Amino acid sequence: MSTSNVSSAPSMDEIRAVSPALARYTTEGLVGEVWARPELSTRDRCIVTVAALVAKAQTTLQRAYFEKALDNGVTPGELSEIVTHLAFYTGWGNALAAVAPLKAVFDARGVDQDALPAASPTLLPLDEVNESKRATTVQGLFREVAPGVVKYTTDFLFRDLWLRPGLAPRDRSLVTVSALTATTQVAQITFHLNRAMDNGLTKAEASEVFTHIAFYTGWPAVMSALPVVKDVFASRT
Amino acid sequence: MSTSNVSSAPSMDEIRAVSPALARYTTEGLVGEVWARPELSTRDRCIVTVAALVAKAQTTLQRAYFEKALDNGVTPGELSEIVTHLAFYTGWGNALAAVAPLKAVFDARGVDQDALPAASPTLLPLDEVNESKRATTVQGLFREVAPGVVKYTTDFLFRDLWLRPGLAPRDRSLVTVSALTATTQVAQITFHLNRAMDNGLTKAEASEVFTHIAFYTGWPAVMSALPVVKDVFASRT
Amino acid sequence: MSTSNVSSAPSMDEIRAVSPALARYTTEGLVGEVWARPELSTRDRCIVTVAALVAKAQTTLQRAYFEKALDNGVTPGELSEIVTHLAFYTGWGNALAAVAPLKAVFDARGVDQDALPAASPTLLPLDEVNESKRATTVQGLFREVAPGVVKYTTDFLFRDLWLRPGLAPRDRSLVTVSALTATTQVAQITFHLNRAMDNGLTKAEASEVFTHIAFYTGWPAVMSALPVVKDVFASRT
Repeated sequence: MSTSNVSSAPSMDEIRAVSPALARYTTEGLVGEVWARPELSTRDRCIVTVAALVAKAQTTLQRAYFEKALDNGVTPGELSEIVTHLAFYTGWGNALAAVAPLKAVFDARGVDQDALPAASPTLLPLDEVNESKRATTVQGLFREVAPGVVKYTTDFLFRDLWLRPGLAPRDRSLVTVSALTATTQVAQITFHLNRAMDNGLTKAEASEVFTHIAFYTGWPAVMSALPVVKDVFASRT
Repeated sequence: MSTSNVSSAPSMDEIRAVSPALARYTTEGLVGEVWARPELSTRDRCIVTVAALVAKAQTTLQRAYFEKALDNGVTPGELSEIVTHLAFYTGWGNALAAVAPLKAVFDARGVDQDALPAASPTLLPLDEVNESKRATTVQGLFREVAPGVVKYTTDFLFRDLWLRPGLAPRDRSLVTVSALTATTQVAQITFHLNRAMDNGLTKAEASEVFTHIAFYTGWPAVMSALPVVKDVFASRT
Repeated sequence: MSTSNVSSAPSMDEIRAVSPALARYTTEGLVGEVWARPELSTRDRCIVTVAALVAKAQTTLQRAYFEKALDNGVTPGELSEIVTHLAFYTGWGNALAAVAPLKAVFDARGVDQDALPAASPTLLPLDEVNESKRATTVQGLFREVAPGVVKYTTDFLFRDLWLRPGLAPRDRSLVTVSALTATTQVAQITFHLNRAMDNGLTKAEASEVFTHIAFYTGWPAVMSALPVVKDVFASRT
């Protein structure tokens, strides 16, 4: 696996060669207007976009957006954590497919392992009350059906992955909500959007996440998510 | 990005080398029988197939089916519009992934930009009554939740993309229904299948769309769509 | 299409170069712990994993897992049938995308066509009673809506594909359930999980399928499937 094997995004000239309209929508609409809206920072837009691209395994665009993320305040360590987080939330194959594009970016910028979160860092403190509540709910539902899923949800996810300090809880939730939207896992947006907002994502930012991600997931995925988002917003007022 | 980077579909010999059965189902079943059914034109089958392949980002097969589409009456301009349309309905990454295969086909056939719809053509006339009804519904549902989504649904989709003359409204709806089926966005099939039939897709054609696309989306996606299709058909009799 | 065109999985060093944590979760968690659990054989875990990778069209990992499957008791003929089966259950493009990686493995191991199931073998005997029940249900639901789908569901799937002797009915159902989970086609898990258990998949094995596949589909897909699994288990006690 060498850098040259990482496929690259089409250039604007290449896009124009198959669709002048798509080139226009990209430059004037998506880049010129949507990315410039003040409701969500460019950094957060990069996180949302990267999460959508990993969730959809769209490797062709990943290198360009990993670069853009680094240029806009996302750290190499945060990108490393985002890919790792999405192994659990979108599948191992999605995370492993992102390794080549991300390694190409890290190699080109001289990012070495010292800049990345350790395999086993000191974890953030656990919110025992809420975690106990979550675990009790999931155990009540599925202990008999799939004890292995219940066990690893606790051991690997909520008492390990979610407590890794390399990505702020608010950003981890932002990644999760973005991935759930991109994969139309609508039911689970309730829990994770609430968690995102508990951890500091404002309502205005949350709203704009869905405006932004519509372009990367397609409109239907967002139209499927909005009724759930509406309920979450209503439940918090 | 050169033509040689576009991966190509496996040959029949290559398919046979891993599964003589898959080769038989392809030649006798899919190509020999399904594609030959009179209920839907070969041109429409090409549009449905291309939409499914872009919706699923299956770039390996796209070049072959773009070629097949051009050989069966789909114009370069229509292919250009289909890819652009699907940027909004399946995500930017899906459209951009289709650029390389489509450019390879256009380059090989000498299709240049003069043959493609302009970036900003004169738009088709707007059906103000129906568009006003649609906009009111969506605003009522989501104006508070995601004003950005509501705005761009109107500005970019229904007052721009859908009015581009390079793809007939009936074909644009056919592309949309195919993409919704391929991505199991079942709830939105109601609106778009009705729109397709309002714009001239017959019930027999609509029915055959789901027969055809089952082979490209897999059976489960179609079995999930059929209850909604049944309701649409029932509501129109 | 040559073997050298088949992209390969990232090495553990390459994974570590972008995320020491992902490397640790892979070696200690997924490989060291989950794959070693006694509730499901390594052979079955390979079948589940291969089905998930084909269902998600994750070609980068397919070669490695086809190899692992052959090393753990899955025969070349069974892999051939799994890919063919998934053409119908996840779409032709998914099966055709698996041709290159599988052919690379077969070429490297000298597997030729004599080792593969014939295109038209003598089929397993049909369970007329159950098939008649299934056909009557589907006809009642969709005969008017999509007669073509109804016809091919019978002709290609239940009176042909499902009766091919190259993959045991229990394994064919295991592949189907895995693919349905990977594509979040939750409603259809009821029929196929029951069929899998009728054909010999134990409850303990079924439960562990969902523990295992969570790592390859991501947690949300499994959390969406578990309520249906719970109902199936409850209905059989």
